[in-house]
Parts: sequence; C-alpha cells; structure tokens
Amino acid sequence: MQATIITIGDEILIGQIVDTNSAWMARELNKIGVHVYEIISISDDRAHILSAFAKAEQQSDIVLVTGGLGPTKDDITKKTICEYFNDTLVLNQEVLDHVVRLFKEYVKAPMVDMNKDQALVPKKAQVIMNEYGTAPGMWLEENETIFVSMPGVPFEMKALMRDSVIPRIEKIGNLPFIHHRTILTAGQGESTIATRLEEWENNLPAHIKLAYLPSLGTVRLRLSSRGVDKDFIVNSVAGQIQELYTIIEDVIVGESNDESLVHAVVQLLKDKNLTVATAESCTGGKIASLITEIPGASQVFIGSTVTYATQSKIDMLNVDPAIIEKYSVVSEQVAIEMAMKARLKFKSDFAIATTGNAGPTQGDSDAPVGTVYIGIATPLNVYGLHFMMGNHRERVVQKTINKALELLQKELIEM
Amino acid sequence: MQATIITIGDEILIGQIVDTNSAWMARELNKIGVHVYEIISISDDRAHILSAFAKAEQQSDIVLVTGGLGPTKDDITKKTICEYFNDTLVLNQEVLDHVVRLFKEYVKAPMVDMNKDQALVPKKAQVIMNEYGTAPGMWLEENETIFVSMPGVPFEMKALMRDSVIPRIEKIGNLPFIHHRTILTAGQGESTIATRLEEWENNLPAHIKLAYLPSLGTVRLRLSSRGVDKDFIVNSVAGQIQELYTIIEDVIVGESNDESLVHAVVQLLKDKNLTVATAESCTGGKIASLITEIPGASQVFIGSTVTYATQSKIDMLNVDPAIIEKYSVVSEQVAIEMAMKARLKFKSDFAIATTGNAGPTQGDSDAPVGTVYIGIATPLNVYGLHFMMGNHRERVVQKTINKALELLQKELIEM
Repeated sequence: MQATIITIGDEILIGQIVDTNSAWMARELNKIGVHVYEIISISDDRAHILSAFAKAEQQSDIVLVTGGLGPTKDDITKKTICEYFNDTLVLNQEVLDHVVRLFKEYVKAPMVDMNKDQALVPKKAQVIMNEYGTAPGMWLEENETIFVSMPGVPFEMKALMRDSVIPRIEKIGNLPFIHHRTILTAGQGESTIATRLEEWENNLPAHIKLAYLPSLGTVRLRLSSRGVDKDFIVNSVAGQIQELYTIIEDVIVGESNDESLVHAVVQLLKDKNLTVATAESCTGGKIASLITEIPGASQVFIGSTVTYATQSKIDMLNVDPAIIEKYSVVSEQVAIEMAMKARLKFKSDFAIATTGNAGPTQGDSDAPVGTVYIGIATPLNVYGLHFMMGNHRERVVQKTINKALELLQKELIEM
Repeated sequence: MQATIITIGDEILIGQIVDTNSAWMARELNKIGVHVYEIISISDDRAHILSAFAKAEQQSDIVLVTGGLGPTKDDITKKTICEYFNDTLVLNQEVLDHVVRLFKEYVKAPMVDMNKDQALVPKKAQVIMNEYGTAPGMWLEENETIFVSMPGVPFEMKALMRDSVIPRIEKIGNLPFIHHRTILTAGQGESTIATRLEEWENNLPAHIKLAYLPSLGTVRLRLSSRGVDKDFIVNSVAGQIQELYTIIEDVIVGESNDESLVHAVVQLLKDKNLTVATAESCTGGKIASLITEIPGASQVFIGSTVTYATQSKIDMLNVDPAIIEKYSVVSEQVAIEMAMKARLKFKSDFAIATTGNAGPTQGDSDAPVGTVYIGIATPLNVYGLHFMMGNHRERVVQKTINKALELLQKELIEM
C-alpha cells in the first residue's frame, strides 16, 4: 500500500510555519507497513489542490490530506474536495452537536454561523469525529483510492490518526511487515564508517536497505526491510546487525528502534531507577526541555538551572567566583563546578553541565566561538571535557546537546 | 518568478526527521519576491528524483533541491542530476582543496576515497563553495529553468542560501515586491473575528490576500500583497491595517512582521534595557530555550530554573514549603512564590513562573490535567493567574508558553 501526504496551507509555502505533521504521519504509516511515496505541500489554491489530488490519486492507494479546514474564507479544502468528487455539502448533526458542546465547554464565546458550517461535510464522506476541535476528519473512497482529510492542527490530526485512521487502514489489511533497526555510532565520520563497511554493504541482500544518517557528532545506520514473512525479515536483519557489530564494534554506542538519544537516556534512567539534573549555560535549557518532552520524565528528571549570565552561576549554583576568576567562565573547572553543584543542589544521582561560547558574538569569556566544556557528575566521579564544536551557533548548541546526552548515556550503561 | 522546493531523503518519507529546511527556504525566497509554488519530499530513488525534476522544471523558474549529497552509497542526488542533465562528473580542484582543509582542521581522521568524491561535480554545474561542509552547492541552468542543489544539513544549506543563492537570484532581477503584515490578536476565536471582519474582508482589493493563522490562544491575521510598485503596495496594505484597527481594536495585541512572540519580547527587553528570568515547572525549560535561541538574548536573559520535582522548587528557589503544603504545588500561591523568588535569586527585572499539570498522568498534585498557573513578577507587582489549557499535553505546554510570553509582553509594553 502506497501513500501520498498532501499538506495544504499558504502559511507553509511562505515559510511561516514548519510542517511537522507530515513527518509524524509518515512515521505512523511506516510502522503499519504503508509506504509513503511522496509528501506535497501546496497553497490554499483551488486549481493547485485539484491537480495535486489528481496526481496523488494516480500514484497512491491512500491520500492523506491535512489543512484548510478552518471556518474562515481562506480555508477551501472542503469545498474543493466536493468539486473533486463531484459532491455536495450536507449538514452532519453529530458534528453540529459536537461543535455546540465544544463551544459551551471551552470557548465560552457565542457561536457564529461560520462555526455551524464546520458541520457541513461532503455527502460521500464518512465522518471521523474530532474530539479536540471543530473540523471533523473525512474519509472518502473513489476509484480504488482512499482520501482522508484532516485538520492541520497537530494534536487534532494526531488524535484522529491514532484513534481512527490508522486502525481503519490496518483493517483493510494486506499490509507488509516493515522493519527498521537503527544502530547509533559515535567517534567516526560517515565516510570512514562507510569505507569500513564497504564489503559488507556490497553483500547485503537486496531486500535490506542501508541508510547513513549523520547528525552532529553521531552517525546512525538504519537497516530497513519489508515483506510478508515477519520472522524472515526480523531474523535476516538481525543477522546483518550481528555482522555489523563484528566490523565496527569500536564505534557502536547503542541501538534505538528509531528512538532518539534522549529517549534512550530517559529509558536507561528509568530502568536503573536513577535521576538527573542539568546546569545549562550555552545550551540554554534545551537539554531540560528535550528530557521533559518525554511523558513520564518526571520520574527521572529533577530539574535544571539555566545560568546564562555569569553572575547567575554564582547566585543559583554557588559556583565559586574564585574559580571563574581564575579559569574564566568557559573552562573545564567551571563545567566541573557546575555539574558538581547542580548534583548537590538538586539532590540527583547525575548532573550534566554545559558552558561554552556558541557565538555569533563573544559573550562573557575570551574563549573562541565553538569552545564548549561539558561537565558530568555521577555518584562515583566528576569530570569536565573540552570540545571544539565548530563555528556555527546552531551546530555548536546541537552538538553540545548530543555530546552531553551521549556522555550521560555511556555513564548510565556502565552503571 | 516561481519556485519549487524538492527535499530528497528516505529519512523524511519514513518520518525519521522533520523537514525544517523547506520552511526556512520558503521564507527567504518569499522575502525577495520569489513565489514558492510547491514543496515536494521524495525518497532517494532514481526514477522518483527524475520525475520530480521534470515536474518541477515544468512548473517553475527555479528549483531548489536539498539532500542526497552525502558521500555514502545511499546518496544519489549528484549522480541523478548528471543523468537528468545528460552530464558527467568532473573533479573540481577548489572543492577538493576545501575538503582536504576541512579534514585537517576539524575531522582529524584520515580522508578516504569517498571524501575525495565529494569534489566531483557535474560538468555543467557552477560550483557554490560550502564553507561548513564537504558537499558543494551546484547551480545549473537549462531550458530557462535554474536548478540549485544543496546539502540537507540545515546550517550548511542556510549559509549557501544566504551567502550565494539568494543574492544570485536577486541579481537575475525582475522580482516583484512582496509585502506581508501580520496582526496579532488574542481573546477571540478565529470565527468570531472573521464574522466581525466579514464586511471589511469582502471589500478587500483583489491584490490583498487575508489569512487567518490561529494558534493556541492567539489568532494572527496576515495581509499579503505583491506587485512592482512598492509604495503602492505598502500604502494600500497600511490603509487596510488601519481599518482593521478600527474594527477589532479590542482584540489586537500587537503586530509582528512575521516575527514570533518571543522575538517581540526579546526586542522589547532590549529596547527598554530590562532583564528577565524564568522559573519553569510544566514548561520544562522551553521558555528559556526559546529565548536563548535568539542571538543576543544574553543581554536580557539572566537564567532559568526548571524545577520539575516539587522538592527542587524548595531547594533551588527557596519556595516556602508551607505554601506548597497549604495550597499544593499547582496553585496560584506557588506560581507567585516561584516568580518572586526567581526574580530575587536571578536579580532580574522580570520573572515568569509556570506550574501546572500538562498530563497525560497526574504528577505531583491533585489538579486536573490542563490546570496551569502562571506567575509574573515585575519591578512593580507580582501576581498569579489560573488557566485551563485543555486536555492534551502538547497543547497545554504550548498554550502555557504563549500565554506566559504574552503576559510578559503586555507588562513590557506598559513599562
């Protein structure tokens, strides 16, 4: 089964918002064995919507459409769906009741006609109720292609997908088993690893695909396969992974089934019943915010201080001002102090600290742009490490986050 | 001038990464008057790349391609470009020298043949040097359409765009003037505002387009126009904005030329020479990390505590345990305490505090999921406000961030 995702909205084409929906939908479809062939973003333009629908219908078994379902005039998806399917809009009472209820419970403003129009749906469409919003999902089938239209608000779309669309697609059946395994490596570049793997890669069976996913400081190797025989697929991929370990064991730091490094770290902390706190300077709270994005993080995450200003390192963490004076605020000694003091203040098992100069301007220290120190405090040890993270602010911050989590992961694995 | 953006990479189609490049590129193109017609994401597949190129060529004056330029076997963009343009790869000495230099300076691992292959470029291509990486940009012209191929690593692509591609497109000339103004509103829903604006909207001149951009707690109204006469465009949009103010002045909270709320807040702090700190519980450091993403934020942002665990509110902020005991950790009183104590501890002019239950599980308090208290401490005042932010974790956190920044913005405007 092959899918096309269409995202409708001027705001995407002028770059006012980042389309995060498509990646999420692609991941969910992939999990159940639906192959996403293409993702298309187009504006709220009738002719363009119609031509995208026609192209998508031709190349896919299922077309997932998001966006353009708001009550205002610039939202024309529903009207254009009607035109495409040669259909008319009819009032759906269940949706209307739901909209009325939402207004009573949450909006508290009087409903206007426009809101009632949210209950108009194409006659041929099967309505999928949207618990979190006024625009319903719509499921249409024609010429053997399924069209599903959903609102663009991420959590509304996600709930519709999770509760209704995905289960319905699964029921259609005939889905192959799709299997990915992703190996995390650190310490060598993509090309060095690829050279070491060349012979192995050349001998990979045709049904297994290898991808290199370099990101800052790490390279992930993803093996993918699909087919009807689940056991065969899983075992043959596992066999290749085993070979991989014998060739590049020195750079493999772990495996994650498409979970991120931060997921892996949180899971390790949970498994080992340990806690962490962070003291962040150049990463500005991003490590904390990544960790707290994971539901259930409160079991393992105690808290964080973002000590952006030098003085706040003293005020909040009791970093010894003499150490800052002697070694400067971007130094191994300060990273160690921050980690140690954060661990004590938060009463956590582990603490991560970052201090550095991410650029573009010089900041409170003489350290050149890209200089970063990461401090790690464990129940057994405390140390600081020096890194040069390159010359670009985004890269410096992202590399620092990855490196800090990687260091913590290593400590946790050995714990 | 019309553009198509093509993003190449299996990792996008299986949802392993979110494509943030396209939005950024679209925004930059838009600024210089290039209309982005479509954004297409496809996999690393020869046939699909070729058909996407053909479609894009047909519908655009310029095609911007990212991804698939890595040194490993799964990256086939360069080879496929050669096939599409009926071209061959030749060694570019300047690129080779650059790759060698990057390896010496940053990688410190020995170069392998694969890295040298990064210096192979299509004969017809004009090379655009990539300061931050080994894959060069490539500029090709054929049949009146320009193709630009760039690496998918965001900051490499951004540097290429900013330093070379955008200036070159501008030089081609003949670009219309594109103008957007975005009005921020708060307090009423999209449909209520649309009803109030109906008559005005119906009378909008054809060259001005209106879009409603609802996000959590706010609705932005974007007016867009394009044309050759800059003064005419700017004045006619300004005239409509003026009318807008007379109709819905009560809900307008500000204007931003597509800058975000956090940008506006940081700018206000800079303008007024004031500082802020945050004490975050349910927002987990996200307010701090948003603020510190803005270059120059160190002038106005002192720091943050993320006090996720109840005990850490006491340890880090000296929140009075008796107050937590009496009112519970999710309460107006604790929000006030957190803001007040954060302001004192960080010695900042303002402090924002958040405490709430974002769900999905209950956490350290009895408050139902969605309950949030925001505390604001200013040089003149300290107060806490209660909100019900809905029943979805993402929504609760995002709404809380927006509301907190909005409250701070209001205080700053009045300061």
